[in-house]
Amino acid sequence: MDRFLIVSTDGHAGLPMERYRDYLDSKYHAAFDEALPIQREMTRQAEEFLLLSDFNDKWREDAGDGLAGAWDGSVRNRVIDADGVAAEVLFPDGITEMNAPPFGAGLALKPWGIDPELQWAGARAHNRWIAEFCKEDPVRRIGLAIVLMLYDVDEALREVKWAHENGLKGILIPPLMGDKDAYNHPKYYPIWEYCAENGLVVHTHSGPSPDYDYTLPGAIGVFVTEFAWWAARPLWFLIFGGVFEKFPKLKFALTEVSEFWIPHMLELMDVRASVKHTSGKLGDFRSHLTMKPSEYFRRNVWVGASALFDEGSTAVRHEIGIENVMWGTDYPHPEGSWPHTKEKMEAYLKGVPENELELMLSGNAVNCYDLDVDKLNVIAERIGPVRSAFA
Amino acid sequence: MDRFLIVSTDGHAGLPMERYRDYLDSKYHAAFDEALPIQREMTRQAEEFLLLSDFNDKWREDAGDGLAGAWDGSVRNRVIDADGVAAEVLFPDGITEMNAPPFGAGLALKPWGIDPELQWAGARAHNRWIAEFCKEDPVRRIGLAIVLMLYDVDEALREVKWAHENGLKGILIPPLMGDKDAYNHPKYYPIWEYCAENGLVVHTHSGPSPDYDYTLPGAIGVFVTEFAWWAARPLWFLIFGGVFEKFPKLKFALTEVSEFWIPHMLELMDVRASVKHTSGKLGDFRSHLTMKPSEYFRRNVWVGASALFDEGSTAVRHEIGIENVMWGTDYPHPEGSWPHTKEKMEAYLKGVPENELELMLSGNAVNCYDLDVDKLNVIAERIGPVRSAFA
Repeated sequence: MDRFLIVSTDGHAGLPMERYRDYLDSKYHAAFDEALPIQREMTRQAEEFLLLSDFNDKWREDAGDGLAGAWDGSVRNRVIDADGVAAEVLFPDGITEMNAPPFGAGLALKPWGIDPELQWAGARAHNRWIAEFCKEDPVRRIGLAIVLMLYDVDEALREVKWAHENGLKGILIPPLMGDKDAYNHPKYYPIWEYCAENGLVVHTHSGPSPDYDYTLPGAIGVFVTEFAWWAARPLWFLIFGGVFEKFPKLKFALTEVSEFWIPHMLELMDVRASVKHTSGKLGDFRSHLTMKPSEYFRRNVWVGASALFDEGSTAVRHEIGIENVMWGTDYPHPEGSWPHTKEKMEAYLKGVPENELELMLSGNAVNCYDLDVDKLNVIAERIGPVRSAFA
Repeated sequence: MDRFLIVSTDGHAGLPMERYRDYLDSKYHAAFDEALPIQREMTRQAEEFLLLSDFNDKWREDAGDGLAGAWDGSVRNRVIDADGVAAEVLFPDGITEMNAPPFGAGLALKPWGIDPELQWAGARAHNRWIAEFCKEDPVRRIGLAIVLMLYDVDEALREVKWAHENGLKGILIPPLMGDKDAYNHPKYYPIWEYCAENGLVVHTHSGPSPDYDYTLPGAIGVFVTEFAWWAARPLWFLIFGGVFEKFPKLKFALTEVSEFWIPHMLELMDVRASVKHTSGKLGDFRSHLTMKPSEYFRRNVWVGASALFDEGSTAVRHEIGIENVMWGTDYPHPEGSWPHTKEKMEAYLKGVPENELELMLSGNAVNCYDLDVDKLNVIAERIGPVRSAFA
């Protein structure tokens, strides 16, 4: 094949707000009707405050009608064809500020400030829709269920099973734990076990952050400094908590956190797990682990490298693990590579050996999500970027 | 001089719990008498749970009566003489688990779970005592006041002024902000301004962390992975908040966070402050800054490098800034270099050029705290480590 197979491990899909109503249990319709204008107004304010209108207007102009691919399958296939992408992992929040599930069940998934029952209702509405959306084209669409596992574990486990039975390939969990039991709590074992046994990939995605006061100077600077840390934070609860030790087949994907700092995180955890004199007074916290933190990372963790992928990411691919890095386009978010994915790939990956490109552009994703590579190659032969462009 | 002048920028001092009573306003005596047995019991439980008794017993045996230097000035001078140290910056929590100020006013300084009035009473009791302790030997003892600046700013400012008027050289502030206004809030300007104008150094010190559930597996691993981040976190609120831009003479010291990861933190902030495409949708958050984050760091921030100082720290001294790293012994904490400071210095600093050693061992501290180097040299000539040992 003279083209590369591309699997984007960071795509976003979501209905226009009002259309989530059809996927909600009817008992939540009244609450939905009440919340919709509030959600619209909050979105408008956030956009006004955070998303500079000149930036956004220009971006929308460039994007044209491609944005409707957030919910329209035929537009989506046309757009990703043009972008050279054969398949995508689909997170919620299609267009960040316009297509989030209701009741705080979008990417942020904060376990505070919202009624858990309503948040679950919003999550289920999205899960039903995304399952339907993926069934339209199961080869190209790798869907994730939103699972609010910090609340009742039995309820969360039922949703995980529903997701698996309905063709979804993974779950998105809240990275921020608030005052809920953290991810090193044994009560979550049944969820990790089910995901491990059934090949469901557990995800966090950047974006969620504490409630900064955005009216204060530099708050956005604080956000951009911390956002990747918050998304990655569950990892050290899982690693030191012995979860990957107990469930060696569990797969975890960390998405859109940028890559250059990940080797630092691995070094930090390894150093912290090994220092003796200075941590002697804290007792033994390592004997339940048989490997170094970075070794669990390389066995159990994948990086959905999108949006912020640049020369810096290419430079550290071996330090992260060449079998752990997966390309993503972040379509249809403005910070991603779409609609210039091929040009960005060429700019940032030129000169990388072909076998490494194959791993990062799709091979690792095929392994992580257990994809049907033969069917995907048929698509790639038609729309994938030509290999010679990267030589 | 054939010996080095050593200034330890991380020492701890504190009274045996019951003796703080004499430094409390009498209206808090009843609350103190009620709290004392509870504090003792919590300390005992924490020690039982976290501080393995075999580790601690052995350490106490080695330490002998040197531990009384936590509150006894003559013991302290004898001990630091033997350790080769001419002067020390003094944080609270003399022996971590036995000499903390009352009412949660020890190192942790959590702005939750304690009545602010009582916490202030505990902080003032310590401040009165440490001011007295430093006046006994003002050349060798560099005292810090505990300032609970997340509560009422006017009250905090009064304490800062009291500290300056009573010979203290800096303040220790809470690194964890809880739900209080963060350090990028303009309401704190009067405190930064007073500190900048009067040369008071603002400190955070590692140790404070969120309320992990220590009964869960791996909780200590999470703590050791995160503790330095929590201590350093106020920095990016100050940097991106424009505080160092507005108060260019403000001095900030970050203490006992280990050093090897600091260049990563600087790189992270610089990258975050410079990326354009991916953060375009977030609007402008940089135009109020005239320098890169790492440049503010090198101008305004010092690192109290103690306890975890090792080959890794020596290796990154230039990446942090050779004029920003200050040695510390962490006496009398078990994780520090005392009573083997000279041996550790030789092990970790051997081969470092002499001018760089001078900066890290005392020169930078002399500049940061504006110390009387002539008087200190008289002491160093008697007790400092001989220069030839590092050649």
